Amino acid sequence: MKFVKNDQTAVFALGGLGEIGKNTYAVQFQDEIILIDAGIKFPEDELLGIDYVIPDYTYLVKNVDKIKGLFVTHGHEDHIGGIPYLLREINVPIYGGKLALGLIRNKLEEHGLLRTAKLHEIQEDDVIKFRKTSVTFFRTTHSIPDSFGIVVKTPPGQIVHTGDFKFDFTPVGEPANLTKMAEIGKEGVLCLLSDSTNSEVPDFTMSERRVGDNIHDIFRKVDGRIIFATFASNIHRLQQVTEAAVANGRKIAVFGRSMEAAINIGQELGYIRAPKDTFIDAQSINRLPANQVTILCTGSQGEPMAALSRIANGTHRQIQIIPGDTVVFSSSPIPGNALSVSRTINMLFRAGAEVIHGKLSDIHTSGHGGQEEQKLMLRLIKPKFFMPIHGEYRMQRMHMKLATDCGVKEENCFIMDNGEVLALSEDSAQVAGKIPSGNVYIDGSGIGDIGNIVLRDRRILSEEGLVVVVISINMKDFKIASGPDIISRGFVYMRESGDLINDAQSLISKHLNKVMERRTTQWSEIKNEITDTLAPFLYEKTKRRPMILPIIMEV
Amino acid sequence: MKFVKNDQTAVFALGGLGEIGKNTYAVQFQDEIILIDAGIKFPEDELLGIDYVIPDYTYLVKNVDKIKGLFVTHGHEDHIGGIPYLLREINVPIYGGKLALGLIRNKLEEHGLLRTAKLHEIQEDDVIKFRKTSVTFFRTTHSIPDSFGIVVKTPPGQIVHTGDFKFDFTPVGEPANLTKMAEIGKEGVLCLLSDSTNSEVPDFTMSERRVGDNIHDIFRKVDGRIIFATFASNIHRLQQVTEAAVANGRKIAVFGRSMEAAINIGQELGYIRAPKDTFIDAQSINRLPANQVTILCTGSQGEPMAALSRIANGTHRQIQIIPGDTVVFSSSPIPGNALSVSRTINMLFRAGAEVIHGKLSDIHTSGHGGQEEQKLMLRLIKPKFFMPIHGEYRMQRMHMKLATDCGVKEENCFIMDNGEVLALSEDSAQVAGKIPSGNVYIDGSGIGDIGNIVLRDRRILSEEGLVVVVISINMKDFKIASGPDIISRGFVYMRESGDLINDAQSLISKHLNKVMERRTTQWSEIKNEITDTLAPFLYEKTKRRPMILPIIMEV
Repeated sequence: MKFVKNDQTAVFALGGLGEIGKNTYAVQFQDEIILIDAGIKFPEDELLGIDYVIPDYTYLVKNVDKIKGLFVTHGHEDHIGGIPYLLREINVPIYGGKLALGLIRNKLEEHGLLRTAKLHEIQEDDVIKFRKTSVTFFRTTHSIPDSFGIVVKTPPGQIVHTGDFKFDFTPVGEPANLTKMAEIGKEGVLCLLSDSTNSEVPDFTMSERRVGDNIHDIFRKVDGRIIFATFASNIHRLQQVTEAAVANGRKIAVFGRSMEAAINIGQELGYIRAPKDTFIDAQSINRLPANQVTILCTGSQGEPMAALSRIANGTHRQIQIIPGDTVVFSSSPIPGNALSVSRTINMLFRAGAEVIHGKLSDIHTSGHGGQEEQKLMLRLIKPKFFMPIHGEYRMQRMHMKLATDCGVKEENCFIMDNGEVLALSEDSAQVAGKIPSGNVYIDGSGIGDIGNIVLRDRRILSEEGLVVVVISINMKDFKIASGPDIISRGFVYMRESGDLINDAQSLISKHLNKVMERRTTQWSEIKNEITDTLAPFLYEKTKRRPMILPIIMEV
Repeated sequence: MKFVKNDQTAVFALGGLGEIGKNTYAVQFQDEIILIDAGIKFPEDELLGIDYVIPDYTYLVKNVDKIKGLFVTHGHEDHIGGIPYLLREINVPIYGGKLALGLIRNKLEEHGLLRTAKLHEIQEDDVIKFRKTSVTFFRTTHSIPDSFGIVVKTPPGQIVHTGDFKFDFTPVGEPANLTKMAEIGKEGVLCLLSDSTNSEVPDFTMSERRVGDNIHDIFRKVDGRIIFATFASNIHRLQQVTEAAVANGRKIAVFGRSMEAAINIGQELGYIRAPKDTFIDAQSINRLPANQVTILCTGSQGEPMAALSRIANGTHRQIQIIPGDTVVFSSSPIPGNALSVSRTINMLFRAGAEVIHGKLSDIHTSGHGGQEEQKLMLRLIKPKFFMPIHGEYRMQRMHMKLATDCGVKEENCFIMDNGEVLALSEDSAQVAGKIPSGNVYIDGSGIGDIGNIVLRDRRILSEEGLVVVVISINMKDFKIASGPDIISRGFVYMRESGDLINDAQSLISKHLNKVMERRTTQWSEIKNEITDTLAPFLYEKTKRRPMILPIIMEV
């Protein structure tokens, strides 16, 4: 890293700055790189057909010899989802908590990468030492067990990465280790990288324990079946549902691949504890009275293929809504999913279910701390320099304001972009340069083979459709041999648009006959003539601009 | 209407039940039909490329002789946007308040329909009498001036339609006419059709007056330019901004076509009052100090082509963000727009502006009443039968619960679908039948020429792209004359996928040569062979399922 001095520590991200997802951070001192997290991002609407987005790993591949390990803060997809793609390029050792490693193991097995992966489970008190740097951990609370903050000790000073966090003083699992955070702060922290997700939320996030109380209330009151949808990774929530079900004499049937996996791994690792026979299979549901049944399923975000959506629209193989069913959404819709969640709720109501959802019911809480929690972190860690991470620009900016309110100097705060490198010495910090960064799109089995041209084509096709013009030309006498034939898809309903198509054909024939007189042998010229003739005609007639694809055959 | 008895009043909707938008309701007694509103709906994401949705007007066209008039509750697009399309089919008289008529006039002029339209301005005390029915009005409060509830007097009883409403006791314009509503209730109401939009909101909606106070506060405190974005149709809001600007010695420059139109019509009709020279043109901005400038613009929903989005992304011809600018979003994002609003806010922050937005700032209030207001309406009107209108199914259901809480019998509540007809006599009501209803899609200049097949094609094209296979076949000797050539769009980047394309070509050639031996003359058979060969190959190689379009030329 040419632009960082030999006695400086470099901090940078390949993903996770100014965006939600694909979190991938690095701390580098000389020839030692500590990677933190390797996430994926779920694409927004305009990335038509794209499944996931990962960061550009170019810098890591080039510097593979320096990478000491990938340290994982917790097991959410936006922090571990990129691992299979990263490992295909560079097989670095991976360190993480028990649950995160369990989930990574599942993931690597699916990708056929488990055999060669180097996985190391960490405990909170571990110290992972390298030649010049070392890594330690502190327990945090988040919406998944085994979440850790990470401390990288480098010669210029300690770099602290919070991971995702909130301060839940009455969590379902273990509480955050405030004592250790205070000690780290006392030792002195050069730079804090802290989670900005909820920096626009003034409240202190509600405790998971209160969510549990409300879930128990529902289970006490409801007489019919309870269909409970939540995030599969929220193992604490699953444990709370399980407890509520057991306390009220209900069994639990589990639906949805990720939910089944979560219940299995949760039981295996001891996070979900229940009497034998609590979990039943789909067939057993119908043998039990309604008030002894809990259906635990995926789909709380209205995902079209998830169990709950199929239950709602009546296409689920095993579960139909029956009168008396109560559906609980123990979740809040992320902005992009608001419409599909709403649609699912409408369908469930129409099918005859009661639906409990929304903020008023207090049956969900965020995994991220609000402003007061972010300030608590700042007061405990007392960093000299501050870099807000995770979240959009607006959130990072608000987080920076909180940091200055808590005594960090404004000039010591750095809102950075992916790829920008912060060079830190004991008493100075500045953005020193930029390394390659960018989005790599995953579509089907293709990694990075979809670029902006393909996406632009998909956008035009999606909004305006396609018109194919096929024509065969006799190149001996420069005459149209057959055609033009016109085929369209996504443009107009062909059977009802005979006149439009006929007029377009005559127009092209007439025009091309003239072009032929020039005895051109340039196919691209003929293609352009077709497009330039047809596009304005179609726009005038329909006010649409379909993609026009001229195909010329020589005979 | 065969299934409604001669002494019964029929109430039905062609749009606006179980959905947001395209509000179009009708009350029919024998041969007299009173239409209420004719709205459009803005399409949701899966309606790729569709501009608007209107209802199927078939029933109205068939019964045009019976239609006495279209009565418009207020001037929002989801209540008047369908008028040009309706008038093209049936030129019925239109009755509406001053502002609604002004906006309809603009709209009809754009569509070249103004000359033949029959427009009648109504006052609150008007009684429009027909042979068997009559129509009266009561003033309501909403986020646009001149909003009315409509009462249709029919022999079996009065039918009351609230339009969109809230109860703002300290509005900017005139208050709702509680007295008249109470009188109508006292006279006796057979059926109430009431706005369900905010039935999931427990609060009494904040007064527009308080929004005004907060806008004044902002104008008092801010030193730089103020860029103020809101809904153009919210004329009261525009008046409040204008007052705040004038009170603080600021001029106002207006950007965005609909905002310019709103300011003009608002001034013309006397809703927006300001000293001469308050409104300035774009050029004058740069001649004034920053603290004397207000930029009033469209784009508060993050609409990509609106003024604010272009200011945010730096493509606006006249306005660039400069340090010290404060942007105010006096709006709340509708669910489908949350991401684009967020993106605009991020861009504005990055460009260096301060941004004031969100619930905490109290600079926006809903146009719809919450639960307490819906209950107040129910208590005033005291209907025998109740039909929740406007809003999704879940909202109508909640509204029905509120109605039963307010004394309407549960069996007297009717949650209906578009097209379903409620037949009302003095003491009974039942769903008696169904008339044609459905969505008509408007895309470009096409009305109704886009159907499900075209939309399905667009969806496939948008997510997976397209592969065209062109082949010419010599039908004399059943041999491939040339090709197969493969062209793709939105699938993979062709230049980097040479192997894939070559392999696909050989596969098709090999297979088709075999097919040719059968000496088939069925082109559809050959096309199917191409698709059936290529689809699994491409899926195996790419895990994508593009649309395959085989084109066969005979030589």
